[in-house]
Amino acid sequence: MPAGELRYPSPPNSSVTETPPDEDEVWAQIKAEAKRDAESEPALASYLYSTILSHSSLERSLSFHLGNKLCSSTLLSTLLYDLFLNTFSSDPALRAAAVADLRAARVRDPACVSFSHCLLNYKGFLACQAHRVAHKLWTESRRPLALALHSRISDVFAVDIHPAAKIGKGILFDHATGVVIGETAVIGNNVSILHHVTLGGTGKACGDRHPKIGDGVLIGAGATILGNVKIGEGAKIGAGSVVLIDVPERTTAVGNPARLVGGKEKPARNEECPGESMDHTSFISEWSDYII
Amino acid sequence: MPAGELRYPSPPNSSVTETPPDEDEVWAQIKAEAKRDAESEPALASYLYSTILSHSSLERSLSFHLGNKLCSSTLLSTLLYDLFLNTFSSDPALRAAAVADLRAARVRDPACVSFSHCLLNYKGFLACQAHRVAHKLWTESRRPLALALHSRISDVFAVDIHPAAKIGKGILFDHATGVVIGETAVIGNNVSILHHVTLGGTGKACGDRHPKIGDGVLIGAGATILGNVKIGEGAKIGAGSVVLIDVPERTTAVGNPARLVGGKEKPARNEECPGESMDHTSFISEWSDYII
Amino acid sequence: MPAGELRYPSPPNSSVTETPPDEDEVWAQIKAEAKRDAESEPALASYLYSTILSHSSLERSLSFHLGNKLCSSTLLSTLLYDLFLNTFSSDPALRAAAVADLRAARVRDPACVSFSHCLLNYKGFLACQAHRVAHKLWTESRRPLALALHSRISDVFAVDIHPAAKIGKGILFDHATGVVIGETAVIGNNVSILHHVTLGGTGKACGDRHPKIGDGVLIGAGATILGNVKIGEGAKIGAGSVVLIDVPERTTAVGNPARLVGGKEKPARNEECPGESMDHTSFISEWSDYII
Amino acid sequence: MPAGELRYPSPPNSSVTETPPDEDEVWAQIKAEAKRDAESEPALASYLYSTILSHSSLERSLSFHLGNKLCSSTLLSTLLYDLFLNTFSSDPALRAAAVADLRAARVRDPACVSFSHCLLNYKGFLACQAHRVAHKLWTESRRPLALALHSRISDVFAVDIHPAAKIGKGILFDHATGVVIGETAVIGNNVSILHHVTLGGTGKACGDRHPKIGDGVLIGAGATILGNVKIGEGAKIGAGSVVLIDVPERTTAVGNPARLVGGKEKPARNEECPGESMDHTSFISEWSDYII
Amino acid sequence: MPAGELRYPSPPNSSVTETPPDEDEVWAQIKAEAKRDAESEPALASYLYSTILSHSSLERSLSFHLGNKLCSSTLLSTLLYDLFLNTFSSDPALRAAAVADLRAARVRDPACVSFSHCLLNYKGFLACQAHRVAHKLWTESRRPLALALHSRISDVFAVDIHPAAKIGKGILFDHATGVVIGETAVIGNNVSILHHVTLGGTGKACGDRHPKIGDGVLIGAGATILGNVKIGEGAKIGAGSVVLIDVPERTTAVGNPARLVGGKEKPARNEECPGESMDHTSFISEWSDYII
Amino acid sequence: MPAGELRYPSPPNSSVTETPPDEDEVWAQIKAEAKRDAESEPALASYLYSTILSHSSLERSLSFHLGNKLCSSTLLSTLLYDLFLNTFSSDPALRAAAVADLRAARVRDPACVSFSHCLLNYKGFLACQAHRVAHKLWTESRRPLALALHSRISDVFAVDIHPAAKIGKGILFDHATGVVIGETAVIGNNVSILHHVTLGGTGKACGDRHPKIGDGVLIGAGATILGNVKIGEGAKIGAGSVVLIDVPERTTAVGNPARLVGGKEKPARNEECPGESMDHTSFISEWSDYII
Repeated sequence: MPAGELRYPSPPNSSVTETPPDEDEVWAQIKAEAKRDAESEPALASYLYSTILSHSSLERSLSFHLGNKLCSSTLLSTLLYDLFLNTFSSDPALRAAAVADLRAARVRDPACVSFSHCLLNYKGFLACQAHRVAHKLWTESRRPLALALHSRISDVFAVDIHPAAKIGKGILFDHATGVVIGETAVIGNNVSILHHVTLGGTGKACGDRHPKIGDGVLIGAGATILGNVKIGEGAKIGAGSVVLIDVPERTTAVGNPARLVGGKEKPARNEECPGESMDHTSFISEWSDYII
Repeated sequence: MPAGELRYPSPPNSSVTETPPDEDEVWAQIKAEAKRDAESEPALASYLYSTILSHSSLERSLSFHLGNKLCSSTLLSTLLYDLFLNTFSSDPALRAAAVADLRAARVRDPACVSFSHCLLNYKGFLACQAHRVAHKLWTESRRPLALALHSRISDVFAVDIHPAAKIGKGILFDHATGVVIGETAVIGNNVSILHHVTLGGTGKACGDRHPKIGDGVLIGAGATILGNVKIGEGAKIGAGSVVLIDVPERTTAVGNPARLVGGKEKPARNEECPGESMDHTSFISEWSDYII
Repeated sequence: MPAGELRYPSPPNSSVTETPPDEDEVWAQIKAEAKRDAESEPALASYLYSTILSHSSLERSLSFHLGNKLCSSTLLSTLLYDLFLNTFSSDPALRAAAVADLRAARVRDPACVSFSHCLLNYKGFLACQAHRVAHKLWTESRRPLALALHSRISDVFAVDIHPAAKIGKGILFDHATGVVIGETAVIGNNVSILHHVTLGGTGKACGDRHPKIGDGVLIGAGATILGNVKIGEGAKIGAGSVVLIDVPERTTAVGNPARLVGGKEKPARNEECPGESMDHTSFISEWSDYII
Repeated sequence: MPAGELRYPSPPNSSVTETPPDEDEVWAQIKAEAKRDAESEPALASYLYSTILSHSSLERSLSFHLGNKLCSSTLLSTLLYDLFLNTFSSDPALRAAAVADLRAARVRDPACVSFSHCLLNYKGFLACQAHRVAHKLWTESRRPLALALHSRISDVFAVDIHPAAKIGKGILFDHATGVVIGETAVIGNNVSILHHVTLGGTGKACGDRHPKIGDGVLIGAGATILGNVKIGEGAKIGAGSVVLIDVPERTTAVGNPARLVGGKEKPARNEECPGESMDHTSFISEWSDYII
Repeated sequence: MPAGELRYPSPPNSSVTETPPDEDEVWAQIKAEAKRDAESEPALASYLYSTILSHSSLERSLSFHLGNKLCSSTLLSTLLYDLFLNTFSSDPALRAAAVADLRAARVRDPACVSFSHCLLNYKGFLACQAHRVAHKLWTESRRPLALALHSRISDVFAVDIHPAAKIGKGILFDHATGVVIGETAVIGNNVSILHHVTLGGTGKACGDRHPKIGDGVLIGAGATILGNVKIGEGAKIGAGSVVLIDVPERTTAVGNPARLVGGKEKPARNEECPGESMDHTSFISEWSDYII
Repeated sequence: MPAGELRYPSPPNSSVTETPPDEDEVWAQIKAEAKRDAESEPALASYLYSTILSHSSLERSLSFHLGNKLCSSTLLSTLLYDLFLNTFSSDPALRAAAVADLRAARVRDPACVSFSHCLLNYKGFLACQAHRVAHKLWTESRRPLALALHSRISDVFAVDIHPAAKIGKGILFDHATGVVIGETAVIGNNVSILHHVTLGGTGKACGDRHPKIGDGVLIGAGATILGNVKIGEGAKIGAGSVVLIDVPERTTAVGNPARLVGGKEKPARNEECPGESMDHTSFISEWSDYII
């Protein structure tokens, strides 16, 4: 295990880990949703059959969809499909993570109307699943292939996650456009990250140089977190914040440069898991100099 | 009409509403521009003929261009072309909005050298027209199709506008990359929005949770506006600002967190329609603590 | 030479200009890297042969790769390949700039494991080379073609550089997603620019209205620089900063609105060339009100 | 009407002309068949929805299918779809001919299991419908477009019918590969033509120089008919025959060079309409020198 | 087993059945050939890696190649790849037949320079393998899918084999363009069939109506065999012949209509297996009326 | 020079060799034709610009068109374009042959309305030009690439010419579908060959085994010529003929098996150059047993 890795303990009462996600159940629901949609909207039926209804499992559907999304004239869909299918088929943890991410989107995002909507349309979800495959390739020392996949994900989804970055499960990348996550970043479980968020490095020095994000963290849109800093479990980073040093667990940092809401000495405490509650703005009243 | 909808009165002397845009006139000019360009640049002539010069109307040209831009291996160009053409043909308001947007780009953006340049090359313009079709589908309860279109727009243009969001006309999405607009957002007429702007929600609560943008507003690059807040008619939001509460009409909010230029009690008054004047920076001298 | 152009002197001891990049040497290394990778990863060999190993020169490989990346159903890969190949073949300065950019990525970005990795996978590198071709077309008054290319670069890479913008060599666009650079912007040599950086204009006035970036400057992620301001040689702009006025050479500006680290009167002096050192965060201790 | 045109009277008791084909009825059956097949074969459902089930009429389905079959990188599917749809929509005779051809295949070819099978999979049917559009363009003096379409049909289906050739309705091109029909050829109604059949010219002289085929004729596989000769109503041409002079009505010509079965003076009489009965081989016993 | 099926005994000393083909051995040789060619011809290396060298087995390579050859905009390569791979993986007989066909081409066709040449470039070989999959689908009552595949094979390769036709192994379809084989045709083992050969039916009657071809038969270019006739083991059909009645084993039929070489009563006897010797023309001296 | 090569003297008064084709003149006319067609038919203008009007020379136009016609998902258009352009640019003889073929089609085929029509739409012309490139590769010992190109030509145009076959200039492949020409075949100058013509081998023996076709020969549709036989200068082969032995110069062979018109001893003499006159049928009156 590389020196840079970080293991926050899982939150004791996380519903996701207590009720292990059932891949078959979610897949059955996805098929039911797609069937309903195909019936009500013939113009979309072809799309729904090719992406979902013609497949016998979530891993096949996901592999097919990613293969067709990420292919290019020089990286054929058949090659990518094969790669995804082999990887998802042989690694149940990847499938479990995909299911946990689907549940995360469904529970946390009020605009997520169905599992199938997330599976087909959420670039954050798709980028994250493709990243997990790239990460697995990276750990197996198949780095050129991992980096080629990384490049395709960044081109197609505008989501740039280095294949070495470690990402937990139950992750919601909401909107996702412009997310950048560096090589030695680590993200815990049940984290929600909005679009344009950067988990960046600190210059050209090598080594462990990117943020470590604890379980249950919520990072608002456009937040920039730089360097090998720790964002503690259950912390919340306000939209547009620039964070360069550690943020204690269950606190909220806001602004550019970021300050703790409630002050450094006695910061206000967050709810249990902002990554799941997705409460972006309730801290406003405590943010003393918000003066419009 | 949903509770969350907002109707700012149109500005009394908006040139766009006084001189109603003439679809035929704009289309004639687009063809003339394309003809001139095709003659001067043979390498581009094929492109100009296929996208503009072979078509008999703006709606056909736009439908063709969007169909080819937004198609994928599982959503064919012919299907999308058909969908766009049927929708634009049957709804003159969509065509009028497209013309108003073309005029807005031409008038407000000094880099916009011609209508055809905007029609072919402005991802903000194209994303907005495709969104209007997705929005129409949404209001007709064809939600899965609206969401599939939404997803393609987000993939191809990196512009993420929920199909339920209501957008007026005479809109300029300048550069457009990274724009995110949430489900219950409402945007008035003659608004200009730069790239990386977020009109976001406030967590996982359902219901009316996104900003309402008045007529004539100008929102600078990278501004983040969160929650069901009102940005009053003719207001101006500085680049990189983070806005979490209402901004009165004809005032300017800047900074993270945003403050009113001139102070909360007696803020400086903007010109009539900053969304049209596009003046991003004239307020600098009044921004007291700008200290470089 | 347009009035808006800016010529910072090259830094006296820049290693890039002292050791002139050898195109053949870099190309030989790229082929050796690709050969090694093709042997170790058969799944990627087809990709590596088609993009690198089947070509006899860097310009052919780059033209092929850009042609296939940027093509669309209405702008064919063969047309673009031809355009790129003709331009790179006839202009040694463009090839030298590409080599300098490859070296910049290799030296400055610890995640850049090889030249071939940059050539194939760095959207910032690819967007910059394609921009240089678009810029050349612009200066030759082939503006419609330049703008069409500009549009494809923005669609495919989410990097939006106006073809009139002047860009030096030894440039690193790191991650690159969301970069926006306006029409009259000028960027010197050996500059490093992170993702989501805007070099934007000041409203709808025509003329020289975008920033001028000196040699050796480093601009952090999400920084927004607006108007015809000068960022002096060797200056550093902190991530997320909003800069609306000049920044003196070898100083660091941070925050929204940006301030000079060390104060306006006696700002701290940077190392020689932050664009090369890529030191994003060492100034933290000097940033007085950073209070987490 | 050009000099070369030939009008055989319709056979008096042709079921096809007595019972006019009902476009709606055939279309309803096609949809029912496709629905049944989509349900029984999920792997094909996407294909069936995109080609048939998402369309509201036979003309839309056929236009979509032909547009996607015949498109190339330089003749886009959207352009062809538009062209086919406009032509079929505005000309009921073309639609009636398509329906008559569908019925012909269904009735005459025992391997034709359904209308939808013919619509989707019979290259002879598809080539013939596309030819009718090309022919209409030809008669409207849109010759370059007609010839481009001709070329695509020949490339894609290996069926080469000059756009000037006149073809009746109720036509079955069975297997169809290798069929060649020249510029001044005329084909009546209810004709069946097997693969590799040539209706060719007689050298480089201009003018009316290709065969005229009467109603109800059956032409066996590989038959070659050259020159401005008349193949009379209800005649039958044996497989592999080479025919250079007229064949009287209701007779059978076989061999290379072709002879009349039963002798020139008193040839055997065919059944009413061999083009419908498709009897290829019953004349064997009468073919005196068949000596295996 | 349908009434129409025909089982000729295998020839007693057929080298193909005595030396069972070794799939691994052939695959190893294919990879060695492709490796040698990729090294000598960089322009082709990408193609050779994607089609052969990146795959771990013949069935994967063949499935990939067929999927990419036969796909269309409405039948995606990923779907076809999946279908082929599942079928070849689960049916060793199909793989053995492919190997036997590869050996047949290598041994019989002097223009076949390598196994990989046949695998990649012989449309007859590829059409035959795809047909075998279509035939398997047909026997599993997946007829609409079988017919869709049939249609693609006919479009792409101009080889039209009804999915119900039964084809043995060790088959060489040389050149293959224009081959048509009807629904109830049966072809034995070690048969060689040249291009433009028709095994056709006899009109619109249903039921068993196509030829039965014995083991070891050779059918010359352009031969047309019609009706439920038997071509006996080891028979030879001359190029351009039209055959409508049975041909005894080990005899040669030539001409239009076909006659037996040597006469009906005492025909000349062929060598053991003309399908393997491919001797097209040695019978000329015996063809009495050949009079040029 | 291989043993099998055959050099008929050129006909003394061939107009093609007397008036040497002028590449520039033909190219100028092609551009004028395309310009006229693009103006009269906007729907085709994009196609005409991309294939002809955007190019600066015939070799570029032809390379572009062939690259786009012959490409596949595993052999990219850019690779083929490059290959064709390099070959045509470096070998004036190939360009001269293309011009001679264009003139041949224009003069001999009354359906050939313009040079541009032939360049764009004649599969025989395109297959022949691509063959010449494949042949050049073959002679340079780049056999795997030559065979891959051969395979694409056969797939796309249904024209199967072995890359080793030698073909003169001033060739018209009329209709062209189904033409098969074997490895050791040689074709002289000013030859016209109709569709479905086979110049085939004689079994599995290696060595020189295919026909040698003299200058000025005309071969009718569906003719099959097998073995290392000589078809003398100015000979004519009737449609559907099967020829297995030599045909003297300036005679006509017809039938299956072929006989000389006028009898073996004193055959009728043809006009000077039937390959140019294209007279297919004037010999009928002399064909004694033509008995319909």
